[in-house]
Amino acid sequence: MTQDLVPITVATGDGIGPSIMQSTLHILEAAGARIAPEYIDIGEKVYLSGQTNGIDSAAWESLRRTKVFLKAPITTPQGGGYKSLNVSMRKALGLYANVRPCIAYAPFVNTKHPDMNLVIIRENEEDLYAGIEHRQTEEVYQCLKLITRPGCERIVRYAFEYARQQGRKRVTCMIKDNIMKFTDGLFHKVFKEIGADYPDIEQDSMIIDIGAARIADTPEAFDVVVMPNLYGDIVSDIAAQIAGSVGMAGSANIGSQCAMFEAIHGSAPDLAGQNIANPSGLIHGAIQMLIHIGQGDIAQKIHNAWLCTLEDGIHTADVYKEGISKTKVGTDEFADAVIARL
Amino acid sequence: MTQDLVPITVATGDGIGPSIMQSTLHILEAAGARIAPEYIDIGEKVYLSGQTNGIDSAAWESLRRTKVFLKAPITTPQGGGYKSLNVSMRKALGLYANVRPCIAYAPFVNTKHPDMNLVIIRENEEDLYAGIEHRQTEEVYQCLKLITRPGCERIVRYAFEYARQQGRKRVTCMIKDNIMKFTDGLFHKVFKEIGADYPDIEQDSMIIDIGAARIADTPEAFDVVVMPNLYGDIVSDIAAQIAGSVGMAGSANIGSQCAMFEAIHGSAPDLAGQNIANPSGLIHGAIQMLIHIGQGDIAQKIHNAWLCTLEDGIHTADVYKEGISKTKVGTDEFADAVIARL
Ligand SMILES: CC(C)[C@H](C(=O)O)[C@@H](O)C(=O)O
Ligand SMILES: CC(C)[C@H](C(=O)O)[C@@H](O)C(=O)O
Repeated sequence: MTQDLVPITVATGDGIGPSIMQSTLHILEAAGARIAPEYIDIGEKVYLSGQTNGIDSAAWESLRRTKVFLKAPITTPQGGGYKSLNVSMRKALGLYANVRPCIAYAPFVNTKHPDMNLVIIRENEEDLYAGIEHRQTEEVYQCLKLITRPGCERIVRYAFEYARQQGRKRVTCMIKDNIMKFTDGLFHKVFKEIGADYPDIEQDSMIIDIGAARIADTPEAFDVVVMPNLYGDIVSDIAAQIAGSVGMAGSANIGSQCAMFEAIHGSAPDLAGQNIANPSGLIHGAIQMLIHIGQGDIAQKIHNAWLCTLEDGIHTADVYKEGISKTKVGTDEFADAVIARL
Repeated sequence: MTQDLVPITVATGDGIGPSIMQSTLHILEAAGARIAPEYIDIGEKVYLSGQTNGIDSAAWESLRRTKVFLKAPITTPQGGGYKSLNVSMRKALGLYANVRPCIAYAPFVNTKHPDMNLVIIRENEEDLYAGIEHRQTEEVYQCLKLITRPGCERIVRYAFEYARQQGRKRVTCMIKDNIMKFTDGLFHKVFKEIGADYPDIEQDSMIIDIGAARIADTPEAFDVVVMPNLYGDIVSDIAAQIAGSVGMAGSANIGSQCAMFEAIHGSAPDLAGQNIANPSGLIHGAIQMLIHIGQGDIAQKIHNAWLCTLEDGIHTADVYKEGISKTKVGTDEFADAVIARL
């Protein structure tokens, strides 16, 4: 076992980003994570300094070199002209799979769905996120939904491989192919084709309207769920929120070369600077990162300490609930409590 | 007050359609609804008889004449070539507003969200439903998301007028304009413009991911919610399901000339012919229809009898729950119970 430090790129982000990143890095350090962070600036400040993409060449250089990115949420300035940097980075780094576990931590965190434990595998590069949008006339606007066979194959295979490796039993595909017979139809077709290679995994498909409704109603009935980009965006927020809070879920953006780890929530500028945000989403992103770089032992240690903190009723405001929680803490104090339990 | 019968067009549909339509018409008749149904055939049989659109000219003629349509769910045959008739009819009849009340009937119907009472106003003609989809190459497929200013103006104004007329306090707009800055950006911009004409109504906007999550988590915090077509499709199934069952919600498809009333659920071919489907969705569609044609008194009478039936614990299988329900009934028996309470 090597003690060499793994270089990772870190962006502290905007809004609540710097605060939850600081907490997360404190925990990683205290747990003995063998990482060497390289800091890059991306997001609002960089946009406003004139880099219209919100990222400069030094940042790209670091990302392409370390290939591992721990990213706090960033803010895209309001108004025309700005493209989403989140989306550009997923695309530029080829991060085709967005893995979002949504797990209830009942009875320690309040939820109406105590038994839920599902993972959304969201296609991360195609669909309406391809960013092809234009004005046809003063009054008519178009956006292109783009679905390709290689894109579908890659994400569907990823979902089945993930299920197999994690010992999960079923993969459900959600699409709207009663309306979008070509695009979502292709996704569905590829799901059935590739599914044939995984006879050990149960598989089924649902139209996204009723599928999302079932997830909102009985999330405990789902295991791994794979879907195109935009549905995955919506459904993962739903699943994370009803499991406890969108503030708790982390996500891994996986490509064949690089990987990016983040919280699923945004930069919440209105909460910035108040030491009240829940760092758990980013902590979960960091845990996924440690597993990715082969430090699963440290990941486990952090996860256990995090869970003990919740079990002890030490909760940030977003999940605080009379009768379940004991102590309402800020971002920093939550991190200290995790560190004390490592 | 005229006793003249109002001609309406009726399609009994496919799958569970004929059974829930029969139940609904029995109730309408017993309640003294002043209607003269004209039956048309649409859907599966018509597709298979060679009318590739699933509708023939006699049906169109009836619809264009009566301008009021009570429609049971229909089945679109699997496989290439068939366009969704639901969508074609909404488009051909100019039914731009899809109104979907999602209301909990606790404690008589099991729900985790007893206080929810919201209405989704879904744009019904544009977006990815425009049906413009094509194959670029063997491996690349595209679907066009189309948003127009007149389309946005019409639906947003409808939502505000609806809120005002129904004495509702707030209209929430859901879009994804951090990604689709032109298309969803236009919807959002028009929402703010037209909102200015309604200072008596509270108004706010949410990104659809977190908006859908909030609806799934705390639906009681919402009142009227307006959104583009596809989001409305997904979110209305979610809201209806967590209120009790997708089997309970009805929908009004409103245009400037015509209106179509239906259940929000599909034709569920696997349940057909078993006398087990819940007719409540279509009953709610019919109640909305009666209000539309100026027979609000009959609508109220049916709604009360329907509610008494639920209160008496007479439930179809989809909402049956030990401890809340008393008698599990089939479709026909449920309708008889409603009629007995008129
Ligand atoms: C911030 C936004 C561009 C992003 C998305 O839509 O993918 C976010 O909602 C997410 O889910 O990571
Ligand atoms: C059957 C289908 C075409 C339809 C839709 O997508 O609009 C249905 O889901 C609905 O919500 O009415």
